Amino acid sequence: MSTLPATAIVREVGLRDGLQSIQTILPTAQKIEWIQQAYAAGQREIEVGSFVPPKLMPQLADTWDVLAFAKTLPGLTASVLIPNLKGAERALEGDADLMVLPLSASHAHSLANLRKTPDEVVQELARIRAARDASGKKTLIEGGVGTAFGCTLQGEVKVDEVLRLMQALLDAGADRVSLADTVGYADPHSVSVLVEKALRIAGNKLCCGHFHDTRGLALANAYATLSLGIQRFDASLAGIGGCPHAPGASGNAATEDLAFMLEASGVKTGIDIPKLLALRQQVAGWLTGEQTNGTLWRAGLPKNFKGALHG
Amino acid sequence: MSTLPATAIVREVGLRDGLQSIQTILPTAQKIEWIQQAYAAGQREIEVGSFVPPKLMPQLADTWDVLAFAKTLPGLTASVLIPNLKGAERALEGDADLMVLPLSASHAHSLANLRKTPDEVVQELARIRAARDASGKKTLIEGGVGTAFGCTLQGEVKVDEVLRLMQALLDAGADRVSLADTVGYADPHSVSVLVEKALRIAGNKLCCGHFHDTRGLALANAYATLSLGIQRFDASLAGIGGCPHAPGASGNAATEDLAFMLEASGVKTGIDIPKLLALRQQVAGWLTGEQTNGTLWRAGLPKNFKGALHG
Repeated sequence: MSTLPATAIVREVGLRDGLQSIQTILPTAQKIEWIQQAYAAGQREIEVGSFVPPKLMPQLADTWDVLAFAKTLPGLTASVLIPNLKGAERALEGDADLMVLPLSASHAHSLANLRKTPDEVVQELARIRAARDASGKKTLIEGGVGTAFGCTLQGEVKVDEVLRLMQALLDAGADRVSLADTVGYADPHSVSVLVEKALRIAGNKLCCGHFHDTRGLALANAYATLSLGIQRFDASLAGIGGCPHAPGASGNAATEDLAFMLEASGVKTGIDIPKLLALRQQVAGWLTGEQTNGTLWRAGLPKNFKGALHG
Repeated sequence: MSTLPATAIVREVGLRDGLQSIQTILPTAQKIEWIQQAYAAGQREIEVGSFVPPKLMPQLADTWDVLAFAKTLPGLTASVLIPNLKGAERALEGDADLMVLPLSASHAHSLANLRKTPDEVVQELARIRAARDASGKKTLIEGGVGTAFGCTLQGEVKVDEVLRLMQALLDAGADRVSLADTVGYADPHSVSVLVEKALRIAGNKLCCGHFHDTRGLALANAYATLSLGIQRFDASLAGIGGCPHAPGASGNAATEDLAFMLEASGVKTGIDIPKLLALRQQVAGWLTGEQTNGTLWRAGLPKNFKGALHG
């Protein structure tokens, strides 16, 4: 039996990965309310949006304003997704604590989504690093290796290619890297195999696991990753997000279910789960007509739950 | 990283644990069709019903006939749940391959559900063992230790009490024992802790893990159990079953999702997943109005799936 880390961070990505995948455009005021309540429930890392062209993703067009609000909350790590140098410049200008550059290890997926090869994304990261260093800002750069467990377009994605690109991102100046099962193909065994190898390359610069629940394995995959010592996981409140390739399929790991799994397993998250469930209800109310996921909200906490109730 | 077993068995309990928890009474012909198709999809262990008084559980009143059919399929292990010696006598008479006697490690749950203390159930198992031995039948006896991770009535269930009762069942003559998270309270860490201790008591007589997906952790819990070498899991097609204490909550681990997790992780189950998904659709059609669960049926198999496609 592996020893689990004492603590772990659930990074909220519902405001970015969740909202970008659904039809509803949440008003800025509600995004701010969401961030405020997530903060009050103990969450300390939130991906607030993405600096992509508003025409491409109107749901996230207010990222600048949302980031500005998030920056007012003491101790909150406010991150943004950036598709390129231009997005990075906005993130630097807005003093984001962290900017995440996604790289798709699947060549086919990379071309389809970013119109760049994976190696061109690595080159973009080098330019972003230069811009960050020149700016004097403290914004961290995370290289997120996506489609790391397979791809809906090309099918298999080779482990060696994922590792090569992870190394290339680090060489190009990424402060840290993460692994994402963008399309929900991962299983806990594949996760264990890849994470173990990635740790040999990246060590403690491998900072996060990002799992989609498309086939019900997000939590099992997170647990396999946790068992290898990784202490940060992306998750989306109410598991919003879905999968464009699988109508009706679940989105990200649900924040509340992941936090429950961690706390029940004795891993401290700082999250007050009842408060988080109250927020879930509020956000689900804003997203009427959209599919929400997750299970804890129906069943409630077990009577013998010993996890933290107060962040 | 732990080494996984090469093979594992997904024991279908949808015909018992699933159907007993929902309103719809499935006609015998449909149960037989279900068993036939599950067998055709490669399933080789099916819990076909329960020898409880028909008045208490009309959904399972045809267990005798369903068992008789299951016995006609070569190589199928047909099991039944039995609440007591009387049920065991029916199981012996019907030549069940296995009879499972549930014991609730929660004193409160045991009294509420079986009107016996856990130790009285141990005594019943001794009587059942004597009856089996006197009958000359080969029917195996499994002692299923339920509410092993907590209880909706009494809350905490102590690990030491679970282990004491498991030892008592073995001492009383159980051929093997299993652990059940009857109410969906388990988390993968608690599972790892308990299974590791239980293995020290029962060794390879610890034969099965039974997890409910009430809080989304059935698959993570199964994986934690698998990682410790356990090679059999109960599951219910379409995750039917629910939880009487949590309206809308998921039932057992979904057979198709569990089989997918195992096969994707390189653990052979002998199950043809596309055939199983076709059966899921058929059974879900019979159960219109009932809640079904699981995720694989929406998303389908990944394009890079390498598991067995033919049982």
